[in-house]
Amino acid sequence: MDWPFEEDLASTKRSVLRAIYWDGDAVAILDQRALPQREVWLRCTDVKQVIKAIRTMAIRGAPAIGIAAAMALALGARDIQAADLQTFRRKFLRLCRLLKETRPTAVNLAWAVDRMYAAIPGNQETDVFDLRRRVREQADALLRQDVLVNESMARIGAEIVPKGARIITYCNTGTLATGGHGTALGVIRTAFAVDPTLRVFACETRPFLQGARLTTYELMADGIPVTLITDNAAGALMARKGVDLVLVGADRIAANGDTANKIGTYTLGVLAKRHEIPFYVVAPRSSFDPAVPDGSAIPLEERDPAEITQLGGRVVAPAGVPVWNPAFDITPHSLINGFITEVGILRKPFDRAIRKALRSGTGAP
Amino acid sequence: MDWPFEEDLASTKRSVLRAIYWDGDAVAILDQRALPQREVWLRCTDVKQVIKAIRTMAIRGAPAIGIAAAMALALGARDIQAADLQTFRRKFLRLCRLLKETRPTAVNLAWAVDRMYAAIPGNQETDVFDLRRRVREQADALLRQDVLVNESMARIGAEIVPKGARIITYCNTGTLATGGHGTALGVIRTAFAVDPTLRVFACETRPFLQGARLTTYELMADGIPVTLITDNAAGALMARKGVDLVLVGADRIAANGDTANKIGTYTLGVLAKRHEIPFYVVAPRSSFDPAVPDGSAIPLEERDPAEITQLGGRVVAPAGVPVWNPAFDITPHSLINGFITEVGILRKPFDRAIRKALRSGTGAP
Repeated sequence: MDWPFEEDLASTKRSVLRAIYWDGDAVAILDQRALPQREVWLRCTDVKQVIKAIRTMAIRGAPAIGIAAAMALALGARDIQAADLQTFRRKFLRLCRLLKETRPTAVNLAWAVDRMYAAIPGNQETDVFDLRRRVREQADALLRQDVLVNESMARIGAEIVPKGARIITYCNTGTLATGGHGTALGVIRTAFAVDPTLRVFACETRPFLQGARLTTYELMADGIPVTLITDNAAGALMARKGVDLVLVGADRIAANGDTANKIGTYTLGVLAKRHEIPFYVVAPRSSFDPAVPDGSAIPLEERDPAEITQLGGRVVAPAGVPVWNPAFDITPHSLINGFITEVGILRKPFDRAIRKALRSGTGAP
Repeated sequence: MDWPFEEDLASTKRSVLRAIYWDGDAVAILDQRALPQREVWLRCTDVKQVIKAIRTMAIRGAPAIGIAAAMALALGARDIQAADLQTFRRKFLRLCRLLKETRPTAVNLAWAVDRMYAAIPGNQETDVFDLRRRVREQADALLRQDVLVNESMARIGAEIVPKGARIITYCNTGTLATGGHGTALGVIRTAFAVDPTLRVFACETRPFLQGARLTTYELMADGIPVTLITDNAAGALMARKGVDLVLVGADRIAANGDTANKIGTYTLGVLAKRHEIPFYVVAPRSSFDPAVPDGSAIPLEERDPAEITQLGGRVVAPAGVPVWNPAFDITPHSLINGFITEVGILRKPFDRAIRKALRSGTGAP
């Protein structure tokens, strides 16, 4: 490992699950690649270490990488060498651009970076010390706000969960993917608090196995009944009439409702449609990108073939086999029943509902 | 390893790929669990060792396990202690029942066992030595016949493969799944011989990764262009208009055409239907079970959770997580464009076409 600091803090940190927090002057990131076997914390002391954690998916999940980017910028702002405001702003803007390039699909990252940049006033009635402080305060605010937004979505979403529902969820959309509580998993958490008869089926989510490694881990920690299935068993489960609801997250939602999310979400949407099972996307307004008209304009990241050809160092495919490894796919809006956001459930026609939701205030709920 | 004999014969056996053959008095089985990293041969000297190889999926694929069962019975017949014909027949029948129980879904196994039992004449004008010889000859005949049947299916199926087709295939249906050449992969092999511009996408096929480990291995050995994808990327590939044809095998086909095959086949069928991509099942008549009216009556094997929670000894899910691990699912006949068999392509209405195909002769093509 070439991380400068790495500690296994499992014994001391277990009480409250979280993906990222301020540890003094450093950003502590739970290395999700080691879960569920080990709780390894990366202690990132500068912006580059956080960038690496995002790129290598030590931290992942659209809202969580937005928060990580904000905290990275706070570290970066602290370390900027600048005698005057203009130099500071120029260097900070460069950092903002660097952060935006770390992962292309999730729009929350760009959204968070833009919020961070907006925290710097354009006038001259300030100084570099004040800008650093404002940047840090904005990062803290985004983290706090994300948890509030998730709790709001969870309350709203829990109302559409039928009594005793058997819910399929995909990838990981919980505390580990956000500032806390989660998006789709947040709805499940809140629904379970009032209806302990609900059951969750977690798709393992190849190739990175966020469902097998992270979602089961979070749900078991909360005592929520979960059954792990392979992604390709979801269809068979629906055919047995074993599913009442599909809840997924989102990495970017276009103006018309087309949704980029973890590869395989589209297939779940097609299957849910065939079986007439409600399919909801749970996402904060920061996951919507009104500048993108439809799904075809969303950039979809392709990742390293080794994610598929190897698992934990074990080779599972012939050397040199060509691989196509898209990290995301597009679920067209026609397959989606609604979007559960912090300001309500958006229903068809989505373009109008999305425009309205994005206009209705900008702060926390 | 508690196999009595195990040899790595990679250096001497590479020239001709095969899953199973007679090595003198023993049945040599290529341990497919070790592929593609190592070619390990299991040398089975009695019926129980072959049964274990089938149960543990050292050998898999509906036609191949039928052949393995036949060869196991030849070993069993050789070792039966019997002074008279009646005792021999009784003990042989017991072995037949034992073999049928090794794996429940693929009907080829039961079909092969029935053929083996039928090889024993009911009259008294014979002796135990003659019965053993007949059983061995029948096993040899089934192996030879399977290759001929596959070559016939391949010739027939190749005609429906469009020029330059991009074909999705699932699980492994090649030489490793049969006596040789393969079913769906046999069609691809023969089609590639006349059209080297075709391209194959192999789904990795969780949890056992037959696509990642075996199909890529076979295709690369033959120089056929193959790209490995996760199962959950097939939908995204189709949405990009990157697929012209889906070819899969079968473990059991009901009288109405409903088809049991590797878990995930149903999902591929649903996706192909949505994208109007032809979906063909390639299977010999021994995969049809006219005694089963529809898919709901086909027994579907569920396997060990560890296939999902572990990979090569590495744990990828929390200890004790509940798992649902069905090995097969049912693709309803409405999603299937046709069945490519050794006597022609069966088209709708399938019930009539299947009845006719099963009546038309019983031997090799």
